[in-house]
Amino acid sequence: MTTIDLNSDLGENVPERIVGDDAAMLRVVTSANVACGFHAGSPEGIRATLVEAATRGVAIGAHPGYRDYEGFGRVDVEIDDATLQAHVEYQLGALGALAASAGERMVYVKPHGALYNRIAHDEAHARVVVAAVRAVDPSLVLLGLAGSVVLDVAEAAGLATAAEAFADRAYTPEGLLVSRKEPGSVLHDPEAVAGRMVRLAQEGVLEAIDGTTVAVRAESICVHGDSPGAIAMAEATRAALEAAGVAIAPFAGAR
Amino acid sequence: MTTIDLNSDLGENVPERIVGDDAAMLRVVTSANVACGFHAGSPEGIRATLVEAATRGVAIGAHPGYRDYEGFGRVDVEIDDATLQAHVEYQLGALGALAASAGERMVYVKPHGALYNRIAHDEAHARVVVAAVRAVDPSLVLLGLAGSVVLDVAEAAGLATAAEAFADRAYTPEGLLVSRKEPGSVLHDPEAVAGRMVRLAQEGVLEAIDGTTVAVRAESICVHGDSPGAIAMAEATRAALEAAGVAIAPFAGAR
Amino acid sequence: MTTIDLNSDLGENVPERIVGDDAAMLRVVTSANVACGFHAGSPEGIRATLVEAATRGVAIGAHPGYRDYEGFGRVDVEIDDATLQAHVEYQLGALGALAASAGERMVYVKPHGALYNRIAHDEAHARVVVAAVRAVDPSLVLLGLAGSVVLDVAEAAGLATAAEAFADRAYTPEGLLVSRKEPGSVLHDPEAVAGRMVRLAQEGVLEAIDGTTVAVRAESICVHGDSPGAIAMAEATRAALEAAGVAIAPFAGAR
Amino acid sequence: MTTIDLNSDLGENVPERIVGDDAAMLRVVTSANVACGFHAGSPEGIRATLVEAATRGVAIGAHPGYRDYEGFGRVDVEIDDATLQAHVEYQLGALGALAASAGERMVYVKPHGALYNRIAHDEAHARVVVAAVRAVDPSLVLLGLAGSVVLDVAEAAGLATAAEAFADRAYTPEGLLVSRKEPGSVLHDPEAVAGRMVRLAQEGVLEAIDGTTVAVRAESICVHGDSPGAIAMAEATRAALEAAGVAIAPFAGAR
Repeated sequence: MTTIDLNSDLGENVPERIVGDDAAMLRVVTSANVACGFHAGSPEGIRATLVEAATRGVAIGAHPGYRDYEGFGRVDVEIDDATLQAHVEYQLGALGALAASAGERMVYVKPHGALYNRIAHDEAHARVVVAAVRAVDPSLVLLGLAGSVVLDVAEAAGLATAAEAFADRAYTPEGLLVSRKEPGSVLHDPEAVAGRMVRLAQEGVLEAIDGTTVAVRAESICVHGDSPGAIAMAEATRAALEAAGVAIAPFAGAR
Repeated sequence: MTTIDLNSDLGENVPERIVGDDAAMLRVVTSANVACGFHAGSPEGIRATLVEAATRGVAIGAHPGYRDYEGFGRVDVEIDDATLQAHVEYQLGALGALAASAGERMVYVKPHGALYNRIAHDEAHARVVVAAVRAVDPSLVLLGLAGSVVLDVAEAAGLATAAEAFADRAYTPEGLLVSRKEPGSVLHDPEAVAGRMVRLAQEGVLEAIDGTTVAVRAESICVHGDSPGAIAMAEATRAALEAAGVAIAPFAGAR
Repeated sequence: MTTIDLNSDLGENVPERIVGDDAAMLRVVTSANVACGFHAGSPEGIRATLVEAATRGVAIGAHPGYRDYEGFGRVDVEIDDATLQAHVEYQLGALGALAASAGERMVYVKPHGALYNRIAHDEAHARVVVAAVRAVDPSLVLLGLAGSVVLDVAEAAGLATAAEAFADRAYTPEGLLVSRKEPGSVLHDPEAVAGRMVRLAQEGVLEAIDGTTVAVRAESICVHGDSPGAIAMAEATRAALEAAGVAIAPFAGAR
Repeated sequence: MTTIDLNSDLGENVPERIVGDDAAMLRVVTSANVACGFHAGSPEGIRATLVEAATRGVAIGAHPGYRDYEGFGRVDVEIDDATLQAHVEYQLGALGALAASAGERMVYVKPHGALYNRIAHDEAHARVVVAAVRAVDPSLVLLGLAGSVVLDVAEAAGLATAAEAFADRAYTPEGLLVSRKEPGSVLHDPEAVAGRMVRLAQEGVLEAIDGTTVAVRAESICVHGDSPGAIAMAEATRAALEAAGVAIAPFAGAR
């Protein structure tokens, strides 16, 4: 039976500042990329999401980013290797402790935002992130963009990896994401998105923006939850996968 | 043979902002209370101190404080229990990961500044800190002020504890610290300080500010390193203890 | 001819993190309460909003809050008077300089979030805020909740004041806001909201939640812009006021 | 009669974290470069220093830096022009408001740390800082390193400028500072330092590190106050200047 994971970025809420419906998303996804406080969230808000994730049996991953709360970790920053490594280690440790306190183990890492994008192509930067993950816990799985440099670097360093596809994004014929600046880069039709993800799970391919068919490796599908429409799309995707007989399960940490 | 530990607050440096000579102090002490980034330090600066501590075989403890970088964690803050617990867990996890990356284990916790002072007498606050420590790692030892409430709370909750005395502080006849606002509360003569600490290690007593003798429990002695004179006092204390045949060794985590 | 002002909370965007459509709202409102960086926004994002406001001829007000970026200034904090005063002065100065750089003058102050709520009833706290405003620029107008304590304190101290009503909120028979926790406290029907505001502008009264009629002083109406529906409601309110012959103009700083 | 100004970096204290004896230095200097909260200080701590400066009749200048509290503004950062300009404007406004609240006017600007060093040679960066100063208040005087690029840029843009020399630093035969990494770059003998400054004030020259004589423009002399020895050196310098008949007076803002 075909199996795939659904992941989402969570833990960005602060008690008085709710930016996403984490409880709703935790009923849809099987893996939670939880903010670590550097780009979003707060220790107590993160912990509340972790408790809910633990209750739901959702796998817990760290979602470390650049230390840029103002810019939500979306701004490229120049940072020396020692600082980057320490920043990632710091966040992984913090998230791991909060997860332990919630009764669960942190089992994977998915970098966030500008950091995610940079290590998709910058090998030197990727090596630093991988070194940080290994130094904290070499059993952590690294979740990254299908086809990205960091997955190769992680595997070469002995880390387990998982690749993800984005449910609501168009792909180039080469299997890369179409830039958000291009028309048609973001998909809005829940039914079409769900259909694409069923095909991806079953056949390992997507229809690219030019109509050709492209192979995309994906142990996980990233869905978003930061708007009511996004949650509905995530629910539709899950329902379509289940209706097609695809099992939905975490890629890491299943008990 | 009598044994005692020497501890100091370290990890407060940032690469471009050196506030203490951590390398010098790590040649004197056997336990390092390392800042966790909430009141001082930076991830990369903390990690540099942890690497040095690991090289020296100095036991590593977390030194969590209120999130108050501006005020160095010295200001009392109102904070609800859930937030306090999450803040302490977050810091312990962060420090533990940086320690692991430096090749060592974090083996104890000594709260910092205003938090340290508050849990010395506020039982409800102390319970939250103890709950956080247990949630992250129940094998962590809690280091606190001799005679303080948090040690009782920790022991009742099943945590191992250690008590500390302050080398350069005067004590009341009841075995409490004389307030810094009182004349004579801080001692400046290295020889006198060293002599007091030898007596404390060997006999378990100190001369109080009124000349009476008071029993003080101390598995560890806190020495300071934030000025040249302070380092000299710490060195004098260690030398006097060794000359008197007192062994200097960590209270926790010895390998 | 009857005249009223429309105000909205703006300047909360950061270049890579757009939380509201400031450009759209600046076509609707006549006064912009601009975040000062303590609870939201960034200097460069704030400046971009100020430049747009200056272009549109929208009056510029400071929107200072508690220093709580994580919690968006919505959390009550204990803060001593000297610190509160300095925090408010700091924010007013910063906003005033950015406004000057954008070619405009800051002409009023509307405190934000938990600070706004507190000074609506806490006279001592209100005095500190008023002292800060006067110390920075005694010609600044203080915009506050109709019927709130801070307006009295400000007037007694010689500051000009303006009162605001909330377009989308229900009122008690006493002319106070119905708590957000109560059913019916937030209004969602743009047409009904617009009609209420026309009546408020023309007759100075609103229908309270129990059906009675209550007088509410309002030189300004607060409209929200943090969702597409909110912008539509703001536009409907403005259109209805104009259709009823009510002039829409800033309460302060008109040139 | 020859006149020169003495300036020092102040306002870096936080009520519970005193890093320098501002009161002592305000009895020595005639101009205070006051931290603006981005690299050091806190609004209430800054305000306390400003009140003391106002009492002493010391001229008040802003000391803006990169937003880097952890690294004390000593780390080079990449920052786009719009962000840099907004950051400088924000700090100038904040400091100006706190000064106004303390009863004084901010009359000059001296950038801090890594920002100071960068605009000494980077013309594009210097233009942005100068644009920020002019946008906030074109009557502000820019205080910078003698011979540095930013002084030329400021003058070309119509700002008044003042040049400073460093009392405790060695100079190259070209009139530049000897790098701190070089032996002999920092001078420790108060008497020698005082003598150099008297000659600088009277003749406009210094003895360079190679024994040659070099002309250095200086309307102001920077003295440090962050250690007891530094304060003594500053006092010795002032005393020697006065003994030599040099008047000590602010370069800007005298009433």
